[in-house]
Amino acid sequence: MVKRTGAGTLVFENQPRIAGYASVVGKKESEGPLGKLFDKVVYNSRGDEDTYEAAESALQREAAALAMQKCGLHTDEIDCVFAGDLLNQCVGSSFGLMNFGIPYLGQYGACSTMAQSLMMAAVFAESGAARNALAVTSSHFCSAERQYRYPMEYGSVRTPTAQWTVTGAGACVVNHGENGAGIRAATIGRITDMNITDANNMGAAMAPAAAETILRFLADTGAEPEDFDRVFTGDLGAVGSAVLYELLEREGLDIRGRHSDCGMMIFDREAQDVHAGGSGCGCCASVLCSKILGDFDSGSLKNILFIATGALLSTTTSQQGKSIPSIAHLLNITC
Amino acid sequence: MVKRTGAGTLVFENQPRIAGYASVVGKKESEGPLGKLFDKVVYNSRGDEDTYEAAESALQREAAALAMQKCGLHTDEIDCVFAGDLLNQCVGSSFGLMNFGIPYLGQYGACSTMAQSLMMAAVFAESGAARNALAVTSSHFCSAERQYRYPMEYGSVRTPTAQWTVTGAGACVVNHGENGAGIRAATIGRITDMNITDANNMGAAMAPAAAETILRFLADTGAEPEDFDRVFTGDLGAVGSAVLYELLEREGLDIRGRHSDCGMMIFDREAQDVHAGGSGCGCCASVLCSKILGDFDSGSLKNILFIATGALLSTTTSQQGKSIPSIAHLLNITC
Repeated sequence: MVKRTGAGTLVFENQPRIAGYASVVGKKESEGPLGKLFDKVVYNSRGDEDTYEAAESALQREAAALAMQKCGLHTDEIDCVFAGDLLNQCVGSSFGLMNFGIPYLGQYGACSTMAQSLMMAAVFAESGAARNALAVTSSHFCSAERQYRYPMEYGSVRTPTAQWTVTGAGACVVNHGENGAGIRAATIGRITDMNITDANNMGAAMAPAAAETILRFLADTGAEPEDFDRVFTGDLGAVGSAVLYELLEREGLDIRGRHSDCGMMIFDREAQDVHAGGSGCGCCASVLCSKILGDFDSGSLKNILFIATGALLSTTTSQQGKSIPSIAHLLNITC
Repeated sequence: MVKRTGAGTLVFENQPRIAGYASVVGKKESEGPLGKLFDKVVYNSRGDEDTYEAAESALQREAAALAMQKCGLHTDEIDCVFAGDLLNQCVGSSFGLMNFGIPYLGQYGACSTMAQSLMMAAVFAESGAARNALAVTSSHFCSAERQYRYPMEYGSVRTPTAQWTVTGAGACVVNHGENGAGIRAATIGRITDMNITDANNMGAAMAPAAAETILRFLADTGAEPEDFDRVFTGDLGAVGSAVLYELLEREGLDIRGRHSDCGMMIFDREAQDVHAGGSGCGCCASVLCSKILGDFDSGSLKNILFIATGALLSTTTSQQGKSIPSIAHLLNITC
């Protein structure tokens, strides 16, 4: 069963585990600091497909297949898959996963989708609704760039606060087996809106959501940042991380010494010219499913917070001058 | 706890209930056969807002507020909201619900989103993850038309198989209280793809998904269509319903006598010139949250199947010549 503590943080009494995980990324990601840790690299931006969108779907398909393979499960043993991406109508997921025939529940939390999907998988496993549940998300630089910004051929100039959409996917199988890191608790995000309207500064828009969720989790559980080996955020980047520090400092919390942002981990910002860092549903998903869960396997991580942030805008709302509502979902992952 | 029966239909042992529900629709819907049953009608296509998109968000906001009000619950008693819509990045939901401050989990199943959201709400209630969970979806003729087809000003001609996107929203509060229809079982849809590529014939694309889910539910539970007062599909319309009958007949099942399609119920097809019927996330949501749940309240319905279907395409995949993968999620609702 799932218990609720404090104002509503979910505590998983039987602690479902991430039994298998895998990541598939693009060439640029393979050249970054975590390059050697990913399961597979696709060197061509279209992979073996005709379009960027189909290439993104292939990332999900391959990450999901590898995650199932790594824990020895077949598609017919997976009771449901929670998946999402940044493409309109989440077609990266629907086209990517349709051939598996696994009961499918599409999720949308923008770049927070991996934490949301893992949370759903954990609730389904814990409640008995699924024996094995899969969580998969992806993003792709080229499909995102042309959908959200400009055609690739423009070669448009990026602002210093802009982030670079990660080409990558991550997949996790969640169950009540003996192996893998456990999901101990989760805090569902609330939508926050600080009236930021600059769609080239997502980090600043998302940082308040991260702060709100972190503070709520700590209040609900009575925990302190020092209780965790590491606090990972999804893709706040350099700008958003600085805003997060400032917001938490106002509440008397300093997480600088134990915080890492997946968007800052995946690229070498200077050498790889990614401005404020990486972003996209595939950013924290591929970092989780390589470096972070790998460090659990090796024993160097034992108890972390994983907070994925998402900006819940569209090009239409931006063109209409609307603000950028944001959200952050938190998972406490433990050994 | 949630039990799994057969190949995976979920059975809710403590049967969470739909404690409150509400529907808000547009002018055309108010002029249809169910016109008098909706809680609120917005007569202007922009409502009190500047844009169609903001008007759609307002539909969700008002339906959610009414549903909570009708069961006497305040926003801080709702532990999470599952919501989705057809707009890119589901901004109808994020902008519509953000001011409530309810922990938010965005869902995407195209026109199947209401069944999916209700299923999630039921699993969360049953597992203890939520005391009260809200499920909300919407669609809007004008925001959908200009996003998926042509600018409204074109006055484009519609094909005979085309459906009319419903302007409407439905909201349900799910909990373990004493009142309301119960959610007894649910079957999560699988993505089916029959290689239909005509985006003006969604009914035909979605019918195989509905057939697959219905057959799986019946096989999993040992039930027969005759066990149910009524079998409601989401928005197959005239074309899709005919395809569904044919597909089920091949398996020896005849549901004609007890089947109704929400897309056919909400409009008078002849008088209102809607071609094959209504569609959109708000179609089956507003019909469920008016006529169907109203008939439970009056005792004229006691046990039904509610199968919402969705087409998981985008304009990009259609322009790229891809097929239309579809899905159908099923709920067994009982008194």
